[in-house]
Amino acid sequence: MTRVSVLAGGVGAARFLDGLVRVMAPQDVTAIVNVGDDMEWAGLHISPDLDTVTYTLADLVNPETGWGLRAESRRTLDRLSELGGPDWFMIGDLDLATHLYRTHRLSQGDPLSEITRDLTQRLGLDCRITPVTDDRLRTVVGTDAGELAFQDYFVRRRASDAVRSLRFDGSDSASPAPFVLDAIRDADVIVIAPSNPFLSIDPLLSVGGVREALGQSKAPVAAVSPIIGGQAVKGPAGDILRSLGHDVSALGVARIYGELADVFILDEADARLASEIESETEMRVVVMPTLMTDVEAKMSLASGTVRAALDAV
Amino acid sequence: MTRVSVLAGGVGAARFLDGLVRVMAPQDVTAIVNVGDDMEWAGLHISPDLDTVTYTLADLVNPETGWGLRAESRRTLDRLSELGGPDWFMIGDLDLATHLYRTHRLSQGDPLSEITRDLTQRLGLDCRITPVTDDRLRTVVGTDAGELAFQDYFVRRRASDAVRSLRFDGSDSASPAPFVLDAIRDADVIVIAPSNPFLSIDPLLSVGGVREALGQSKAPVAAVSPIIGGQAVKGPAGDILRSLGHDVSALGVARIYGELADVFILDEADARLASEIESETEMRVVVMPTLMTDVEAKMSLASGTVRAALDAV
Repeated sequence: MTRVSVLAGGVGAARFLDGLVRVMAPQDVTAIVNVGDDMEWAGLHISPDLDTVTYTLADLVNPETGWGLRAESRRTLDRLSELGGPDWFMIGDLDLATHLYRTHRLSQGDPLSEITRDLTQRLGLDCRITPVTDDRLRTVVGTDAGELAFQDYFVRRRASDAVRSLRFDGSDSASPAPFVLDAIRDADVIVIAPSNPFLSIDPLLSVGGVREALGQSKAPVAAVSPIIGGQAVKGPAGDILRSLGHDVSALGVARIYGELADVFILDEADARLASEIESETEMRVVVMPTLMTDVEAKMSLASGTVRAALDAV
Repeated sequence: MTRVSVLAGGVGAARFLDGLVRVMAPQDVTAIVNVGDDMEWAGLHISPDLDTVTYTLADLVNPETGWGLRAESRRTLDRLSELGGPDWFMIGDLDLATHLYRTHRLSQGDPLSEITRDLTQRLGLDCRITPVTDDRLRTVVGTDAGELAFQDYFVRRRASDAVRSLRFDGSDSASPAPFVLDAIRDADVIVIAPSNPFLSIDPLLSVGGVREALGQSKAPVAAVSPIIGGQAVKGPAGDILRSLGHDVSALGVARIYGELADVFILDEADARLASEIESETEMRVVVMPTLMTDVEAKMSLASGTVRAALDAV
């Protein structure tokens, strides 16, 4: 039995996890998911990263976008648009049911982690998916246009603003959700998924005790680079590395994870950076294909990452 | 120009108003609508009576039910049901957009009356539809099973509990919405629609100043009986008359409205009660067909009611 805990954002993490649960016993896998992207939308609580991970693992995700549901419709959203309501955040009719369910339960006082557990169980998942915290955590993006709520920056303005700063509103008082610290302490392997270091991993680490638990855990920590050949596979990680003054490369990411991780998973395209990363950080670098183009690639990356981590002990 | 203000509940009032705006200039018609039936559902603010009136006047209502939208689907609700969420309150996909729009605007701090005005304008309506109050008002139904929130009693338990008492939570502090008192004071005719006296009209009158304005208005007040031949046309009015110890008849209703109204519109089927009502109350009774089976019947009832009120001056 190898227990693997994964620090996870949205699409990239979901794909990694999809590979992981196919090569490990799913009940040994815990995904600790970012909720800094969460938002209130027309009264509903939306947890985009939790949903992306859950939908992906339940094989319900829209394969073209990597988020949202397959065979989705937008009857409600189209009508809302006709009424003059907010229509910039794409919410399909089936997806909406998840948000209604979650908001209903929250309004009854149930914690997000319990609601997430019940949703994943109802969808037949055997792995554990938990929000990093049941408390309020909101990523606030500092731009030249002022501070923006995360989804305002990310969806409404299509991540087109240069990111000058980031803060995680609520992190001062947020506590880890019930099983989060245990999942880090008791893991045999910890993986930092190929997610955005600033927008997915940092908010997660900002929750009280999480970074410390990671530092104290005896498990090896493997970080998978979300940057291949100087570009983010998906999303604005490249732009943010640049605007915050980092190297736009796997090396830039490796410097960020240097203190946290023992192993750095580098794509073959970046193999030439391996020695530089190893000399600049304490991490051992393992080179492998990291682009998750199909199920086999996901499985191969997941098993390769776990093996690399175990080899590092 | 004859300005008509109508105290309105849901389906019965909506049908009456539908006739009224066809026989009067719609811009001279104001519907003051009950919000005691409003509820929070999975984070959304739902205003059933406002929606029923609006949908009916916009010719969007489902003619079979008298509420909800025509050509409605339940993709979201079916999914919510699969997830184990609350599915006892029927909310279609298009209807949902109204609730999302309203909740979004409320979350921005806009008052319900403004939101309602914008919704009705967007749907092309020329009459004015306003909630009786922008404040929180909730009908609480006392039953042998304890106190029930209105929709819990009405929809979830299908109005099957004997009603022992009624109270309107929030009425102590609720103020009339901006145009409500003016619409009562400046009206040439005031109509109490054929709605449930206990569940639709009473909560409306419980809002501070509304009952007083009605008493002070110089306009004649006509009440249309919602009871025909000892039965409610729709809903539990008959059962409630009985359980609260009233006569289950138009006479029972007339006694309730005796202090408020000048004219009582009685159905032909109840013509034999006319003299008893006139001797027991101060109201003049006018007998006419009140069953709104088609557009002509609605128009005829509306014009007959306005004429009867004007004749009473």
